[in-house]
Amino acid sequence: MTKLIDGKIVAKEILDNLADEVLFLNKKPCLAVIIVGNDSASKIYVNLKKKKALELGFNSIVIELPEKTLEKDLIDKIEELNSDKNVNAILVQMPLPKHINPLKIIETISPQKDVDCFHPYNVGNISIGKKSYVYPCTPKGIIRLLEYYDIKIEGKHAVVIGRSNIVGRPLSQMLINENATVTLCHSKTKNLSEITKTADILISAVGKPNLVTENMVKDGVVIIDVGMNRLENGKLCGDVDFENVKDKASYITPVPGGVGPMTICSLMVNTYDLFKYQNSL
Amino acid sequence: MTKLIDGKIVAKEILDNLADEVLFLNKKPCLAVIIVGNDSASKIYVNLKKKKALELGFNSIVIELPEKTLEKDLIDKIEELNSDKNVNAILVQMPLPKHINPLKIIETISPQKDVDCFHPYNVGNISIGKKSYVYPCTPKGIIRLLEYYDIKIEGKHAVVIGRSNIVGRPLSQMLINENATVTLCHSKTKNLSEITKTADILISAVGKPNLVTENMVKDGVVIIDVGMNRLENGKLCGDVDFENVKDKASYITPVPGGVGPMTICSLMVNTYDLFKYQNSL
Repeated sequence: MTKLIDGKIVAKEILDNLADEVLFLNKKPCLAVIIVGNDSASKIYVNLKKKKALELGFNSIVIELPEKTLEKDLIDKIEELNSDKNVNAILVQMPLPKHINPLKIIETISPQKDVDCFHPYNVGNISIGKKSYVYPCTPKGIIRLLEYYDIKIEGKHAVVIGRSNIVGRPLSQMLINENATVTLCHSKTKNLSEITKTADILISAVGKPNLVTENMVKDGVVIIDVGMNRLENGKLCGDVDFENVKDKASYITPVPGGVGPMTICSLMVNTYDLFKYQNSL
Repeated sequence: MTKLIDGKIVAKEILDNLADEVLFLNKKPCLAVIIVGNDSASKIYVNLKKKKALELGFNSIVIELPEKTLEKDLIDKIEELNSDKNVNAILVQMPLPKHINPLKIIETISPQKDVDCFHPYNVGNISIGKKSYVYPCTPKGIIRLLEYYDIKIEGKHAVVIGRSNIVGRPLSQMLINENATVTLCHSKTKNLSEITKTADILISAVGKPNLVTENMVKDGVVIIDVGMNRLENGKLCGDVDFENVKDKASYITPVPGGVGPMTICSLMVNTYDLFKYQNSL
């Protein structure tokens, strides 16, 4: 019997507990979000993050900068937030305008306030298996889902499709730290289905509808679908052919309602963890 | 026909070219090595590194500190070298005495002088696929060997056994950056041979004689043996049952004389690369 992994329930439980903890704080965690330009999708994401932070009783700062903002001025603004004791977590909404180097911006954010966990220093700590005070949001959310449903990771063969720096690469590192055997597949991978068939846990983070089909997975596989694709009919779908794959899977995440809710949940937990870390120094 | 991968030849060619380049420099690259305590193996390694550096026309500094050196005093010494314009590369010989935290020491070395590429910032840059000014020595040496023998990496399934921070983990990241599909196996991996049989390129970095046997590999596999084990009879051997595996392999590294010579070679190239980087700033 296939079990559906419900990210809405897990995220709600985590955030309800977090809200309760925040109630008893005399200081409030503060998340600062910078958005440059007028990308409408970015504005929606930023507002969602602000709304969620306020719901939890966090302080939320949103800094909107014009499209033409100079890289230098953005860096100055970030450094101002780095040294602001009232700000615990800093997020610069991506994508940035073409004239700004995103890597340079990511490295400007203090690792101790790097709520997305994009800074090379924080990425490196995860890569060497060192405990970090912050973890990348979506991978962290995926590990939480597996833990919530008592899905053992140690000794399992986890196959990750997609090598982005937001999901695939850091997730592979975190799964290694959880003692899984990990295969990382990507656009240059040959006979993908030969590899996916060997997966105990299959995570797809590509952004391609129906990339993972029934004949590519073994019976009992655990499927985590990070894809979020908008079809012509307006419907959302993941990377996995859900209808045909679900009956072979022991566990599977729906899209929407699977991994999605966990990402913003992890962002809030990260904000709180950074707050606690900074107040423990 | 199996081809032997000769690390001695490749390393010699790289180092000969490097020595020629150094001849024409008016400043010389400088490698500083710190050794704490009296571990005899460590002393041998440090002397080898010093000897090689001097052969190349580098400047070499070896700082020997007593076993009882305080962590704080070691950190002070490293910071002194960080700010010394005449020192381009800093290496602290591991292992350190129990009372010193190696991670803390690694993080004290300036990333711009981190010749071993152990600093989380440098590790992270490799993990996000960003060009780094320095790469971990043994993985870098392995990539060089594959390149030298025109062994294509892109699209190949590379299976790495062993998840150390010196070889297995960073090598996996570098192979992903070279567009290989990568599986990282380790002590918790189940049915290892099922996975190794699918490898186009198999790298073993565990330190266990005869870990990889004939029945664990497919015909035509490329085998890179990072193991360096001393048998009771005094002989050196790798992780691979060389005699029985070699006829199935298209390429294979012997032990000794395979990967071994590449590690110190990479260390020298890293020293030179850091020198060039610092002089380009």
